[in-house]
Amino acid sequence: MITQESYLKPDVVPKVARRLQAIEGQVRGLQRMVDEGRHCIDLLTQIASVQEALSQVGKLVLRNYLETCASKGIRSGNAQEVYDEIMEIVYKFVK
Amino acid sequence: MITQESYLKPDVVPKVARRLQAIEGQVRGLQRMVDEGRHCIDLLTQIASVQEALSQVGKLVLRNYLETCASKGIRSGNAQEVYDEIMEIVYKFVK
Amino acid sequence: MITQESYLKPDVVPKVARRLQAIEGQVRGLQRMVDEGRHCIDLLTQIASVQEALSQVGKLVLRNYLETCASKGIRSGNAQEVYDEIMEIVYKFVK
Amino acid sequence: MITQESYLKPDVVPKVARRLQAIEGQVRGLQRMVDEGRHCIDLLTQIASVQEALSQVGKLVLRNYLETCASKGIRSGNAQEVYDEIMEIVYKFVK
Repeated sequence: MITQESYLKPDVVPKVARRLQAIEGQVRGLQRMVDEGRHCIDLLTQIASVQEALSQVGKLVLRNYLETCASKGIRSGNAQEVYDEIMEIVYKFVK
Repeated sequence: MITQESYLKPDVVPKVARRLQAIEGQVRGLQRMVDEGRHCIDLLTQIASVQEALSQVGKLVLRNYLETCASKGIRSGNAQEVYDEIMEIVYKFVK
Repeated sequence: MITQESYLKPDVVPKVARRLQAIEGQVRGLQRMVDEGRHCIDLLTQIASVQEALSQVGKLVLRNYLETCASKGIRSGNAQEVYDEIMEIVYKFVK
Repeated sequence: MITQESYLKPDVVPKVARRLQAIEGQVRGLQRMVDEGRHCIDLLTQIASVQEALSQVGKLVLRNYLETCASKGIRSGNAQEVYDEIMEIVYKFVK
């Protein structure tokens, strides 16, 4: 399993951190909306918006995983194993 | 549009609020994982877990929407319109 | 379980049948594309198109299910049970 | 765009062809079910089964795309461009 060695690249860390802070704010906004007695459809819309923001973070992390890990694996001659792993990860995490 | 009148029922509000607080905690956990330099796959796993928790909240809200709003609409004789709206909402928000 | 009694309404049957015939044609088109050695991306695009067409059929059937079955259940006084079933069906089949 | 040069490998063609034939049979089975007046839930279950079979074909094709195309691109030194394309294709076609 080559996965073990895939970390976020230094330039990706602050991008992910910033997005997660924004998502934390969105979740708190959702709590306020519940307290204020907002309509169900407004709540569903905001939930979908947080889910989309999380998907975007997931996309950044998956892109980083491909770049740091798959690249290394393919160059090292384990291409078949790497492709199998990419497929597994992709079908597990892409929503 | 009957949607406008669908609010969370009093007994559903605390359930949704509790789950949102747990989700806020999960997002902060994710921030810590980024700071600690955890593996990409660990991050993807945690992101998927937050997405699942949000889906569960969405399910509670959608269930409430059906119960308070569709029920009223169907009894009032606007069944066709209500079913169209349910279908629209369902295909928009179910992930 | 109220589900057992939900059938396609007479006016929905030909709509569903026509769409399924078109989908059969699309699948055969896909077989020809494979025989002709088309690009992977062309194949993926066509597969996505068949999946979308199937989703549309599913939507017609789910709409019919709501109309014939849920309506009856809600009027009969089993609203809670009907909503639970709708939620179960929706989260099982909506893609 | 490196995509243009990704074809199904000779050993993958018969696998994809066999699956597509099975799917054509499933679609015809679905038509019979409609003719026989089967329950909505039975129809939804069969539709979901065809969608799953199509997803499996899509997975085979995507795996082939990765292997023939990405591998070549990464070795040729266009790794960044290849990863961008993989991400685009993956988020477009994985369902």
